[in-house]
Amino acid sequence: MPKPPVLTPQATDFPKWYQDVVAKAELADNGPVRGTMVIRPWAYGLWEQLQGEINRRIKAAGAQNAYFPLLIPASYLQKEAEHVEGFAPELAIVTQGGGKELEEPAVIRPTSETIINSSFSKWINSYKDLPLRINNWSNVVRWELRPRLFLRTTEFLWQEGHTAHATADEARAYALQILEDVYRSVMVDVMGIPVIPGLKTRKETFAGAIRSWTCEGMMGDGKALQMGTSHELAQNFAKAFDIRFQDQNGEMQHPWQTSWGVSTRLLGAAIMVHGDDHGMRISPRAAPTQVVVMQLAEDDAVAAAARATVQELLGRGVRVELDDRVDRGFGRRATDWELKGAPIRIELGKRDIDKGEATIADRVDRSKTSVPLTELVARTVEVLDGQHQRLYDEALARRTERTVDVETVEDALAAAGNGFARIPWATLGLEGEETLAKQGVTVRCLVGADGSLSDPDEPGVLAVVARAY
Amino acid sequence: MPKPPVLTPQATDFPKWYQDVVAKAELADNGPVRGTMVIRPWAYGLWEQLQGEINRRIKAAGAQNAYFPLLIPASYLQKEAEHVEGFAPELAIVTQGGGKELEEPAVIRPTSETIINSSFSKWINSYKDLPLRINNWSNVVRWELRPRLFLRTTEFLWQEGHTAHATADEARAYALQILEDVYRSVMVDVMGIPVIPGLKTRKETFAGAIRSWTCEGMMGDGKALQMGTSHELAQNFAKAFDIRFQDQNGEMQHPWQTSWGVSTRLLGAAIMVHGDDHGMRISPRAAPTQVVVMQLAEDDAVAAAARATVQELLGRGVRVELDDRVDRGFGRRATDWELKGAPIRIELGKRDIDKGEATIADRVDRSKTSVPLTELVARTVEVLDGQHQRLYDEALARRTERTVDVETVEDALAAAGNGFARIPWATLGLEGEETLAKQGVTVRCLVGADGSLSDPDEPGVLAVVARAY
Repeated sequence: MPKPPVLTPQATDFPKWYQDVVAKAELADNGPVRGTMVIRPWAYGLWEQLQGEINRRIKAAGAQNAYFPLLIPASYLQKEAEHVEGFAPELAIVTQGGGKELEEPAVIRPTSETIINSSFSKWINSYKDLPLRINNWSNVVRWELRPRLFLRTTEFLWQEGHTAHATADEARAYALQILEDVYRSVMVDVMGIPVIPGLKTRKETFAGAIRSWTCEGMMGDGKALQMGTSHELAQNFAKAFDIRFQDQNGEMQHPWQTSWGVSTRLLGAAIMVHGDDHGMRISPRAAPTQVVVMQLAEDDAVAAAARATVQELLGRGVRVELDDRVDRGFGRRATDWELKGAPIRIELGKRDIDKGEATIADRVDRSKTSVPLTELVARTVEVLDGQHQRLYDEALARRTERTVDVETVEDALAAAGNGFARIPWATLGLEGEETLAKQGVTVRCLVGADGSLSDPDEPGVLAVVARAY
Repeated sequence: MPKPPVLTPQATDFPKWYQDVVAKAELADNGPVRGTMVIRPWAYGLWEQLQGEINRRIKAAGAQNAYFPLLIPASYLQKEAEHVEGFAPELAIVTQGGGKELEEPAVIRPTSETIINSSFSKWINSYKDLPLRINNWSNVVRWELRPRLFLRTTEFLWQEGHTAHATADEARAYALQILEDVYRSVMVDVMGIPVIPGLKTRKETFAGAIRSWTCEGMMGDGKALQMGTSHELAQNFAKAFDIRFQDQNGEMQHPWQTSWGVSTRLLGAAIMVHGDDHGMRISPRAAPTQVVVMQLAEDDAVAAAARATVQELLGRGVRVELDDRVDRGFGRRATDWELKGAPIRIELGKRDIDKGEATIADRVDRSKTSVPLTELVARTVEVLDGQHQRLYDEALARRTERTVDVETVEDALAAAGNGFARIPWATLGLEGEETLAKQGVTVRCLVGADGSLSDPDEPGVLAVVARAY
């Protein structure tokens, strides 16, 4: 009798499939306080890989890491009117500390524009202090009424960058540099996820910004996910927090600012873009473990071959793990690694070794290939090298297939049932945006006709609309 | 006229010197909520280096990283009686979330034994699930009445490890392995700080543990700092959270547990152990930037030499930074790097270059040496290689000089005015410990007569007593 499937098939119920993967692959649990999450080691390992790649690119873009406090005086949030309006409903508020009622309640940061800019006002005096480019890795809290693990959680992990520049042009260029060289690059080049960089409409702009830029991805069910954003804050916070610098002519000016962030939501994207009915699939560029060497028998020759393979792969710079849990059934062990999406399993059994062979199991297409032990490491590295592009191509093909160009709001609505619709922004407009919103369809971003970034006023601008997570 | 000294001299007022270094070297600022801190880029860079070294060793010890929620239901803290008693006075409590009064208040984690063990109770079923070894990098909040930057702050960054084992012996061995292979190793081998590993007295044991082990360092003024601790929790939390596993005989048992942590307090130690009247000094093994190449003139040949030197050092694996701020005065720039404790400055001026020379400024002894450009990189690497041991030797010599063996409580008290006193634990006892405590002197740890770790009951055990931060 066939075993019942471990996961609800994607085609049956995609959200249920997602929940199943998160639970069965041991990615995350719900925390006891509503909306919080426990990130388990495999998912956290993926987050660490992404952090490393993001961090390296942020530093290459000239920003420095620093750390700002978790707790913000409630009054700070009030200083920028739109900002407080946007975040007030989501705040967690500390009213007691050290056994006493606090004189002024403290807010747990939902984002750190206010507290970071209060520091900037002390650190910035002269044009020589600019540009000031700071990044903070941290946890933030936004009270969630409809939490979903990784996608919308009351607490999440992220990085938030905050910069100050002498001119509006420089700030704008930097916001776009981060979007392109950090966010798009990590999503495409590391995660293997095609994304659409674009401009948010006024309705979807960050509270306190004049322009928000985004990278939007299409998930396995055709819905959109906002995967990262970069904002131009103009002088809004600089004025609210009285940040001034003396320019080269001796005049006092407010700097122009940006802020930008990506979060553990990226883990949700990793699951939903590449996952299949057997679990996660992960690009080897992002996977915490790229190759699992499975010792299948309690046997000296097998154990020796497994250890030798691990050592050789380590020598090639591969992130490799030995699974020698021979006291557990093979089927369960293989399923566990499939669920987690380890890019390659190398299976080493007694009979294989006797024949001088091993099996390479490729998680991307689930193919299994017997190879001579003498070629094992070279073939493994070859398969690893090709997996990223194959995952990217699959995701891009799906997005292409499920994206249609339309000319009316009605057609956009219909198309959004299956994927993305592109409609001229001049046709859609603010009114069309409202109409769609009532049906749960949003403008994910605005893009130029050739796919490049653009201002909404330019001719040929398209709105990408979709249902979204 | 000589310029006023930048820092209060250590001999004049050590705590004031510390405050001055933290401010002038731009290490940290006070946050707006009392006791919180902003960690500025240079200090955060040092923290990142330490994190990397700690993380590598934790993984080598078989633990995996994961993430647990910031917010803990208040009722969880109640489950272990000693634990809640120890932490209740320091808690920050969230009473409102998402615009509503919460049904059950949530506590911001002061430490995560309770929330992590609630997960362990779900994850542990069989002896095959053991040992379970988890580490969490995070921020915690303990309300501080007398905050001091890095040393005692309301919010601090740390890692906390939590493990579960099948036997008491294994748990104990693991707590000691972490103390030795992770904490002592990072302090000694990376930071260049001699530390005394030892056992805490009952009075100083972590709330909820049966034994706490510590690494104690001596600061520049002879006072002690507890730099990291590792605890044996026995089955206390396993019982409180009903964690059970089926052993190999099919019997249900509670596992034996450990927890252990080091925090941004290490940055305070880094400042206070090696700092001098000119600022910080940092072992090159820990320094975020090991070599600063200072271009001293706006001149093509100088600029070219500076860039070439940076490239060559990068090629040798050195963490190097170019300082080409030729629009600022040389004195100010050199002082800035001295304050921050960059291990080596390479000064490249017009006249130097014309002579085919450059100057190596060694932060450890403040010596300056002219060297031919052809030997610059080799000599720089040579100086770097020796700095760690010189810093360690200096700190060890001071500790040796300021540690005395005494036989009476009175002598211990007197000696603690200058540094550490060692007194037989059998002589001091619980009563002597209380007597000292009333004078602000504490037993930092208990050690065996030969300096090794020991149980307090063994003969020859010494108590190390001191005033402490």
